[in-house]
Amino acid sequence: MNVTRTAAIYKKIQQTICSSLEEADGSGRFSEDAWEKEIGSGLTCVMQNGSIIEKAGVNFSCVRGSFTENMAKLLGEDATSFAATGISSIIHSGNPFVPTIHMNVRYFNLDNGSSWFGGGIDLTPTYINPDEAQLFHQTLKDICDRYDITWYPEWKNWADDYFYLPHRHETRGIGGIFFDRIQPANENDFEKMLNLTSDLARAYPQIYGNLMKDNGQKPFTEAQKKWQKIRRGRYVEFNLIHDRGTKFGLESDGNIESILVSLPAEVEWVYQYQPEPDSPEAQTQELLKKGIEWV
Amino acid sequence: MNVTRTAAIYKKIQQTICSSLEEADGSGRFSEDAWEKEIGSGLTCVMQNGSIIEKAGVNFSCVRGSFTENMAKLLGEDATSFAATGISSIIHSGNPFVPTIHMNVRYFNLDNGSSWFGGGIDLTPTYINPDEAQLFHQTLKDICDRYDITWYPEWKNWADDYFYLPHRHETRGIGGIFFDRIQPANENDFEKMLNLTSDLARAYPQIYGNLMKDNGQKPFTEAQKKWQKIRRGRYVEFNLIHDRGTKFGLESDGNIESILVSLPAEVEWVYQYQPEPDSPEAQTQELLKKGIEWV
Repeated sequence: MNVTRTAAIYKKIQQTICSSLEEADGSGRFSEDAWEKEIGSGLTCVMQNGSIIEKAGVNFSCVRGSFTENMAKLLGEDATSFAATGISSIIHSGNPFVPTIHMNVRYFNLDNGSSWFGGGIDLTPTYINPDEAQLFHQTLKDICDRYDITWYPEWKNWADDYFYLPHRHETRGIGGIFFDRIQPANENDFEKMLNLTSDLARAYPQIYGNLMKDNGQKPFTEAQKKWQKIRRGRYVEFNLIHDRGTKFGLESDGNIESILVSLPAEVEWVYQYQPEPDSPEAQTQELLKKGIEWV
Repeated sequence: MNVTRTAAIYKKIQQTICSSLEEADGSGRFSEDAWEKEIGSGLTCVMQNGSIIEKAGVNFSCVRGSFTENMAKLLGEDATSFAATGISSIIHSGNPFVPTIHMNVRYFNLDNGSSWFGGGIDLTPTYINPDEAQLFHQTLKDICDRYDITWYPEWKNWADDYFYLPHRHETRGIGGIFFDRIQPANENDFEKMLNLTSDLARAYPQIYGNLMKDNGQKPFTEAQKKWQKIRRGRYVEFNLIHDRGTKFGLESDGNIESILVSLPAEVEWVYQYQPEPDSPEAQTQELLKKGIEWV
């Protein structure tokens, strides 16, 4: 019941996200692929080669199925079936001065009585601009504070820990918020989380629209583009090695093109690439660490 | 004792591989990075931007350390310490008509008495040429047959199973041979496996030298280059999601640049890319399946 209602709300927000992003980009248009598998159905909206957006995926899905042994291991829950709905989105820009952004909201329901919300928004700039990072975190804090002032600080740290590449000893970007397994204790709690996740998902295209407006027309060099492609390599490493959503998708035999639409278009790996000391690239590298209080 | 001797032989072969590949490429040169960590030492030889070879890594390492819980899980063995030596190599060519190749030989020793050899060679063409595939498999079969005629058919199937991307329902390339946990029963057996793995590692630059000679000067279009980058995306997916060597390396806090030198330089992900029906790209896609008897 709650899954069906949440799914209906999330699905409408998906449409809002896509139309806002189309308007902000100007020329790029989303293609829509509705998919249906045994496990459920979804709508994958993808924009490729817009004027500023190089590749964006906005996935909605509503799935239900039997709870496999591997899911049990991943989630540490004992159940026989699950139902889940969510929106998951990533936007990569062709311009290295427009960051990569990721947003996800989801509601999960198990037949053992457990149910929870999860999600977050995080930002991965090719070049970290501290003012922009501050504004981004402030926006997330404002949304969280409307519901519970303990959430932003907690979920900000959670994002630092989650969006981390241990093998590189660096964060994926400047973080944001991440939360998982937030179990509503009652119907009131449920409404609160449904509203919070909806607010976050609605704020997402606004945040990105501003980033596009501020940076989308900035000229860039070949060397800056190369740095972007190298940073994107780290993004791929994170998504394929660590990201739980990707793992869960691969595990549950989801729609592979939807799952991997998160991967950027053009990526590069250079052996032992080191930015020039004191360069803007080195300054960004310096800031890829946990625990920076942007707000 | 056996690890030290095997390491000395493998290390010499690494030099042979590098000098053969430099000669075959013409202008490309390997840089050498010797590394030492608590876990052991190694020599990572990397060529970038040769005349035909775009990126090649030839890694030698000899490591020993305590056997972690995760290693125990990965290997299904109960031990407290391990020693291991091996050569691992991948070559990516800039020319889409020169395949990507991978070779690995390794010897593993646990303090619970277990020890084994593993390894293999496999080929991943951007465009599959059946004559070339046949010759490649014949070469591997000839080497195996000198030691045991049951090995090639067994290890060929093993490669089909191992170099497989379940989420894409396709093989990585045309396979080759793969073997693991071959436990020598006695000193004679050990010599046999040491010789076989050495033969494979020595044949490797010869095989690739011929592929470079035959295809390295072929002209190619932008569209063919794009297909190569998309195919490389699958290579990245395999290495980061499935490859046991990569997982083991990440797990054992090995040298991250050496571990990920296997990733190709320029890669591309395109949402729902489909080759034109009956095109050479579609023909290659058709052949990315298990069970093709090339010999």
